[in-house]
Amino acid sequence: MFSENHRIAGVAHPKGFKAAGVRAGIKKNGNLDVAVIHTEREAAVAGVFTKNLVAAAPVQVSKKVVATGTAHAIVANAGCANACTGEQGLHDAERMAEITAGELGCKVDDVIVASTGVIGFNLPMDKMESGIKAAVQKLSREGSVNAGNAIVTTDTYSKACATEVEIGGVEVRFGAIAKGSGMIRPDMATMLCFITTDADIDAKLLQSALSDATEVSFNCISVDGDMSTNDSVVVLANGAAGNPKITERGEDYEKFSATLKTLCVELAKRIAADGEGATKFLTINVTGAQTFADAKRVGMSVANSPLVKTAFFGQDANPGRTICAVGYSGVDIVPEKTVIDFGGVNVYRDGLVTKFDAEAMRNVLAQRDIVVDIALNLGDAAATIYTCDLSFQYVKINADYTT
Amino acid sequence: MFSENHRIAGVAHPKGFKAAGVRAGIKKNGNLDVAVIHTEREAAVAGVFTKNLVAAAPVQVSKKVVATGTAHAIVANAGCANACTGEQGLHDAERMAEITAGELGCKVDDVIVASTGVIGFNLPMDKMESGIKAAVQKLSREGSVNAGNAIVTTDTYSKACATEVEIGGVEVRFGAIAKGSGMIRPDMATMLCFITTDADIDAKLLQSALSDATEVSFNCISVDGDMSTNDSVVVLANGAAGNPKITERGEDYEKFSATLKTLCVELAKRIAADGEGATKFLTINVTGAQTFADAKRVGMSVANSPLVKTAFFGQDANPGRTICAVGYSGVDIVPEKTVIDFGGVNVYRDGLVTKFDAEAMRNVLAQRDIVVDIALNLGDAAATIYTCDLSFQYVKINADYTT
Repeated sequence: MFSENHRIAGVAHPKGFKAAGVRAGIKKNGNLDVAVIHTEREAAVAGVFTKNLVAAAPVQVSKKVVATGTAHAIVANAGCANACTGEQGLHDAERMAEITAGELGCKVDDVIVASTGVIGFNLPMDKMESGIKAAVQKLSREGSVNAGNAIVTTDTYSKACATEVEIGGVEVRFGAIAKGSGMIRPDMATMLCFITTDADIDAKLLQSALSDATEVSFNCISVDGDMSTNDSVVVLANGAAGNPKITERGEDYEKFSATLKTLCVELAKRIAADGEGATKFLTINVTGAQTFADAKRVGMSVANSPLVKTAFFGQDANPGRTICAVGYSGVDIVPEKTVIDFGGVNVYRDGLVTKFDAEAMRNVLAQRDIVVDIALNLGDAAATIYTCDLSFQYVKINADYTT
Repeated sequence: MFSENHRIAGVAHPKGFKAAGVRAGIKKNGNLDVAVIHTEREAAVAGVFTKNLVAAAPVQVSKKVVATGTAHAIVANAGCANACTGEQGLHDAERMAEITAGELGCKVDDVIVASTGVIGFNLPMDKMESGIKAAVQKLSREGSVNAGNAIVTTDTYSKACATEVEIGGVEVRFGAIAKGSGMIRPDMATMLCFITTDADIDAKLLQSALSDATEVSFNCISVDGDMSTNDSVVVLANGAAGNPKITERGEDYEKFSATLKTLCVELAKRIAADGEGATKFLTINVTGAQTFADAKRVGMSVANSPLVKTAFFGQDANPGRTICAVGYSGVDIVPEKTVIDFGGVNVYRDGLVTKFDAEAMRNVLAQRDIVVDIALNLGDAAATIYTCDLSFQYVKINADYTT
């Protein structure tokens, strides 16, 4: 479903989409830093954005585009978040849309804008203008890899995938590129994800499907929607597949929605696994909660605990820290009913830390991928949270990010 | 007010109190690990305990003692938290009280019990019994330093102070010992603080004064009351000073309460400054909030941000991370009204990161003590939060704490 070919195809996998990434000199290291994604055919658009009250200028611009229901392009840069930049920042974000629209011959309010990088600096608009123009010239069906690389910051690799599903007897394609960030709580710019599909779907239903998918994917890694200044997840649906237009909830919508969800979960997992300095990928399954919100709250409490994260980094069997984080999550758990396993080995039950086999636990903790199962035994709701450990490298990366 | 002599006198500064700390072999490193504090004269008692639903056995025992309103002694150990230990743990905590009461000739329910250290292991009760007996034998007016050293875990130094105030024409003395823990969010055992005073005060008023003092001190470092399994703050007031008994709110109560508050804030600051691996001590003043709760929430959001903390560790001028944490705090702030200074140098105003003088900022960030002022300009409420930075050493300490 998510092959190497799919990864390479990325956002240009669905019909009618092209992409490009170029070097504009915005990143200090000289890497690719400006991306453009384009659909000639007008696309329905939906978006989920940061709830942070300090929202970056491009987020403000893009929300207006999503409100129109249609879009033709996405322009994005890395290296500078254009956040906390006031009127100048808003003007610069609007200029990014104008330049892109001018080059592509579409309307200004058909261009989604996104930025990621350091907060508090203005965009170098001369470089940006040359970069956008160059990117538009390079738009191609092969351009997704470069576009993906142009939006990363401290990511160690670009996240991309693609897939397809049959809807109404027609093959409908999906593609995506994404970037992550510091994973304890990514309170700085930014998680970005751009999804393309050639499905024909009503914009309101597209928004509904994206909101649902985000809830169990990007909002289930330590990325809370309300954290960073620049978080943006945007989907464009251009209808080029020719499926019977999805205009109501039903089988077609469910298929579309399920596929979008799978795609988003896959990207979310890759983002968590590539958290800054990560040496471990932790999957935290919380079951037996009374509500999804409760299950998520417990899982996030564990995922956000620096003490839990450093213990996994140190391959140190420390279930006490996990049950402690469950206990202070704010959810009305019952310690005596709670059961916790690390990699299938029971570590907590009946209010007690279990006398587990030390050798078996060492084997579990030596793996890169570790599953933590937390059964609350209070109800039927569940949530899965993805996160990573907290390493020396995390501190190093974040102690000298701007300098 | 808090001199070296005061520090040495500690909990034995007030009349009628003795203390001791001994080596019982509970800590792996062989350091002092069992403490006893005793007042011959019956004391009024008050306590504030963790709100974590996974509360350790000693917390459960001590809450019952506080409910009686009187106590004669405190027994505490470090090296093993006696948390997540079920029925056996509860039995062991009760045994600690029994042994202490037997040696001191007081009632079992007059003995406060506290433990700190690794979660999930049972106390070695043979060692504990010898330790308590030895400690009771060594009780003295000079024993506070040893008692303080016997309750520390990863602290780099024991926290102690003492002071006095005139109430009703009589000198009333206060003393305290305390220990801290990991400071990002101390979600493991434990913050402990034992306060003694020779004031004569009604137990209900003592509880009220302690609760108020805790709110602006221990609950204003990253220690939320609801975090660890073992957090305990206990005060004993034995009346030996002979002041007119404080039985109602009024001038005497206010003096008592203000002094207790000053003592608690001083200890809280020392705990924050000695956070695991700390190289910086951060004072976060939030002003202009609509309520104290709002001010505290904004300050805690900044204090708990790993990205803010690593930036200060790296002496990296990164105000974007601070305003970002203000923005996602959940408080309805207005970015354009918010003003942020680092060490008196303005870094954010009018929705913009300020073009501050780089040399001046380097000087600010090179200090160990850094003040972050956040003015919300929305109301008259304020809160001060104390925290530390996040260093390599923090990760190292916590990656191999149990092993």
